[in-house]
Amino acid sequence: MKNIKIAVVQMEVVAGKPDVNCEKIIQKIKEARENKNDVVIFPEMAVPGYLLGDEWENNGLIKKLMEINEKIREESEAITVVWGNVWADFDNVGEDGRVRKYNAALIASNKKWLDNEVFEGHTFKTLLPKYREFDDERHFYSMQKLADEKQVDIKELLKPFEVDVKGQKVKIGLSLCEDMWDKNYFNKPIEILVKNGAEIVVNISASPWTWQKNNKRHQIVKNILSKNPVNFVYCNNVGIQNNGKNIFLFDGSSTIYNPDGTLMIAAKPYKEENLEIRLEMEASFAKASEGYNFVSEENDTKELYDGLIYGLRKFFEQNNLKKAVIGISGGIDSAVSASLLVMALGKQKVLGINMPSKFNADLTRNAAKKLAENLGIEYKVIPIQNGVDLTMKELENNGFKVSDFVMENIQARDRGSRILAGVAAAVGGVMINNSNKTEMALGYTTLYGDMNGAICPIGDLYKWEVYELAKYINKISQKELIPEEIFEIVPSAELSDKQDVTMGKGDPIIYPYHDKLVRAFVEFRKDLSEILEWYDKKTIETEMHLEKGLIEKYFKNREEFKKDLEEKWKLYKLSYFKRIQAPPIIAVSRRAFGYDLRESQNGVYVAI
Amino acid sequence: MKNIKIAVVQMEVVAGKPDVNCEKIIQKIKEARENKNDVVIFPEMAVPGYLLGDEWENNGLIKKLMEINEKIREESEAITVVWGNVWADFDNVGEDGRVRKYNAALIASNKKWLDNEVFEGHTFKTLLPKYREFDDERHFYSMQKLADEKQVDIKELLKPFEVDVKGQKVKIGLSLCEDMWDKNYFNKPIEILVKNGAEIVVNISASPWTWQKNNKRHQIVKNILSKNPVNFVYCNNVGIQNNGKNIFLFDGSSTIYNPDGTLMIAAKPYKEENLEIRLEMEASFAKASEGYNFVSEENDTKELYDGLIYGLRKFFEQNNLKKAVIGISGGIDSAVSASLLVMALGKQKVLGINMPSKFNADLTRNAAKKLAENLGIEYKVIPIQNGVDLTMKELENNGFKVSDFVMENIQARDRGSRILAGVAAAVGGVMINNSNKTEMALGYTTLYGDMNGAICPIGDLYKWEVYELAKYINKISQKELIPEEIFEIVPSAELSDKQDVTMGKGDPIIYPYHDKLVRAFVEFRKDLSEILEWYDKKTIETEMHLEKGLIEKYFKNREEFKKDLEEKWKLYKLSYFKRIQAPPIIAVSRRAFGYDLRESQNGVYVAI
Repeated sequence: MKNIKIAVVQMEVVAGKPDVNCEKIIQKIKEARENKNDVVIFPEMAVPGYLLGDEWENNGLIKKLMEINEKIREESEAITVVWGNVWADFDNVGEDGRVRKYNAALIASNKKWLDNEVFEGHTFKTLLPKYREFDDERHFYSMQKLADEKQVDIKELLKPFEVDVKGQKVKIGLSLCEDMWDKNYFNKPIEILVKNGAEIVVNISASPWTWQKNNKRHQIVKNILSKNPVNFVYCNNVGIQNNGKNIFLFDGSSTIYNPDGTLMIAAKPYKEENLEIRLEMEASFAKASEGYNFVSEENDTKELYDGLIYGLRKFFEQNNLKKAVIGISGGIDSAVSASLLVMALGKQKVLGINMPSKFNADLTRNAAKKLAENLGIEYKVIPIQNGVDLTMKELENNGFKVSDFVMENIQARDRGSRILAGVAAAVGGVMINNSNKTEMALGYTTLYGDMNGAICPIGDLYKWEVYELAKYINKISQKELIPEEIFEIVPSAELSDKQDVTMGKGDPIIYPYHDKLVRAFVEFRKDLSEILEWYDKKTIETEMHLEKGLIEKYFKNREEFKKDLEEKWKLYKLSYFKRIQAPPIIAVSRRAFGYDLRESQNGVYVAI
Repeated sequence: MKNIKIAVVQMEVVAGKPDVNCEKIIQKIKEARENKNDVVIFPEMAVPGYLLGDEWENNGLIKKLMEINEKIREESEAITVVWGNVWADFDNVGEDGRVRKYNAALIASNKKWLDNEVFEGHTFKTLLPKYREFDDERHFYSMQKLADEKQVDIKELLKPFEVDVKGQKVKIGLSLCEDMWDKNYFNKPIEILVKNGAEIVVNISASPWTWQKNNKRHQIVKNILSKNPVNFVYCNNVGIQNNGKNIFLFDGSSTIYNPDGTLMIAAKPYKEENLEIRLEMEASFAKASEGYNFVSEENDTKELYDGLIYGLRKFFEQNNLKKAVIGISGGIDSAVSASLLVMALGKQKVLGINMPSKFNADLTRNAAKKLAENLGIEYKVIPIQNGVDLTMKELENNGFKVSDFVMENIQARDRGSRILAGVAAAVGGVMINNSNKTEMALGYTTLYGDMNGAICPIGDLYKWEVYELAKYINKISQKELIPEEIFEIVPSAELSDKQDVTMGKGDPIIYPYHDKLVRAFVEFRKDLSEILEWYDKKTIETEMHLEKGLIEKYFKNREEFKKDLEEKWKLYKLSYFKRIQAPPIIAVSRRAFGYDLRESQNGVYVAI
């Protein structure tokens, strides 16, 4: 019976810092060797990181990365090392006319490249994702393109590597991330690898967290293995990576599967961790000889909370940020943002500023103060009325008429760009944007006002999720960290008499419905005609997961419903001019504003 | 001898407005029929526009576009119509798991779809660009993927359509945009079409203007036709389209080529225009029977100016913007921005605001006033000193220490977010961002200050180009529109005593060198090691097109040179946090900041 001991290294990959990552890889190889592993496996793009934007065009970097590949090979004395990095073909160009690059899995043993009779020491990703934040087709050449160019069948190119494990020959099939998510592709790389003799399939990934992704993955592995029963090793990195507009959470959750698709062992999310296990193979079937650690069924809100905390902590760490300066209004959004920051960074790194104008009620001002006390953060009250009055006077003295609406935005900008930006600069800190997804979608924000910030922690959360998170925060802190009154105050911008919270007057948004409407637009990519059809068929409450009776409560008839629907669609499309200039948002939904959802400024077109 | 009369419709395509575009197409078909054309040709994606972001995922829109295809077919009575639109296969998915979509050329005649024995009434784009602003692979399935999936040779799929022209059979090969830019691809779609019998090749494009693109295109067509001599028809749209962060200029410049690659007739840039011509074919060779109109050799600055004016005009028109509110400082950047706006929109749509603090010299203040008078625009002087003093006092009263550097940025934000944003809101206008590319690259800008704006007209221009444009503006206006002193004042932010223009003290940027350095980084994708190598080999002045002796003048030795190089690289990389929130930039270079150059916020990695 063949047997092989493998180590899966769930490492934190720091994007754009190959020197840091390389050093860690070398350290981990040493540890794996000391622990008598036969094979040690690192994630996809473990050397450079995955989300580098167009830095892939930097030939100096690419040369450096190729040098690092040789350096890692040199470290493979008495062990087989599998890792992800770019592999460049300097003699050929990609379809962009630049040096041709592949998203590659590399494999070396005893300081030599292993050979699979097609490639020496490397193989390439076949399925290149290019939806959402993924841009693999932009940067890399695929195995399928190479097959087309060489006019060979792709089956001739996807071969396992034979590894010598103390005299035993074990065939390892290497695949990269999307290669296992093959549902929408005509190529099935894993299947080809197994048909070509792979006894173990390794998938190295750089796969960001999304809702229920891990459960989906387990199902997919099960389906694949049902036809091709071999051990399956999934190695994913942890860390955060970004594309400017969005910050993605890499949760790791590396897993080794039994040949029947059940879980043998799994790593924890967001933790650097090694999985080490001995696999025993008989014929084409192997089973675990040690260690069981099933993925726990986690509560959605806990997963969300854990991800956001991790993302905030890493963002501040990687960008070397010293202090978060946050406006605290007494509303739920700023309360949740501030609490997350304190929990991620510690209270000494958070500075809260309350900036009342004459429209802010004692109710919210007191709530803000209480929150700051509960959090134990430094807190200042800096009223904006003098600034607003000065601006009004200067504009009016120059003949400009200031309407109530313009005056509302002057307040928001006075807070964001005069006070908060000034304080942040003075203390060497950064501002926090407290917008939620629903108001960002409908443009219920002021550019250069509450849209300001270096990061937007809850920008991918609907209002209901903000409340859920608030409840969860109070639950785990085992006290009323976020004061009860903040849950009860009607959501309001408090920018005019019309938004008097003490009279229960708030935002012109019906959150229980519009939250879900925005979700239908943005995440489920539904358009007006589909939603109107749901209304007509009376299935809308089921389809959109609305409370029963809610639609009837707010809309007397079809005309009213349709009017609101079109109005919200218009707000969504027209307010994109603000999102163009929005700060980075931590992506946690199926589609976040930023470079996850790509928009054009084309006004509105109603296709009903 | 076969002969055929064709009309090439260089229309303005409005992105995201299929109803508007469809109406125009139908009108143009009627005109072409009345003029006795046999074939009428429209650009790529003439119905929906090309840069729609992820709106391609809107199934309601896709259904509507497919309906419009049938509507256009219905209009093809007694004429053959060729146009670009999406073609959706609702029975299959793309690699993103959504409805499969192709970037298609459609062809109908006498109300019927023409058949090429492979497809009925349509063919698909083979080469999908995915560099710079292009995202075809994200949205569309390629002909090559279809061939792979069907396991047929692509030559079996790329067939010309036979058109009946008064009893003559003429075979027209349809291609789309990138299909002719085949240099970096192993597939050569035009060649395949000709080998498969095409007597005329039509290329429908949605191709934005870039430097010298049209000359490159003429050369490429010549190369292709040298091996495959047939008439070649290039139909491109005019208009502007955007991806949020960048506005692209579609210049049209549609051209019909003789089979030897010489130009037969060409349309003007940025104008809606029809090219109508009768082609006569003998064997596989045709020549023009009428009309010659060669593309003129245009001056680079004129081309740049024409593009920017067109882009500004269309941006204001398409977004229904009433007024441009612009800060005028007395410097060259705001002078050029303001002049462009007046020339694009007319003086009554431009409002100039000068916002001096105590650091602004009479020299610049007078120059600003003179510029405004020359332009004939409404002009106000609103000093910011009261606002700045108030902010300083409020911060200091709350215990925050305001350094000189912080005070500089307070001034910039007071201008941008308090005064200018307030005025823009009051008059129902939008702010203009006056940043140039070099300062944007090096982060010599203030977020929520001079970075504010709805559009950035000169954000893709280096400082030297700003001066060139200023001279050109004065030349064509036949007077000193931009006052001579503005050319002479040293570039300066005037935010402190250290930046006193009257003492010749200005920005910490050596524009004659750093302009070119930024260009090397951003456009030519050079990294530090390559530039240092030029320095060492003493080829840097030639490679970077620098004035002779310039490097020696500014850098005493290698150490000084290298120190500055690394410092600028760091500024370029670290200041990306500002560009994330920058307004839309009109793209005119080989690489513009925005979604043309995609960046990640990963700090600095120096690969020397």
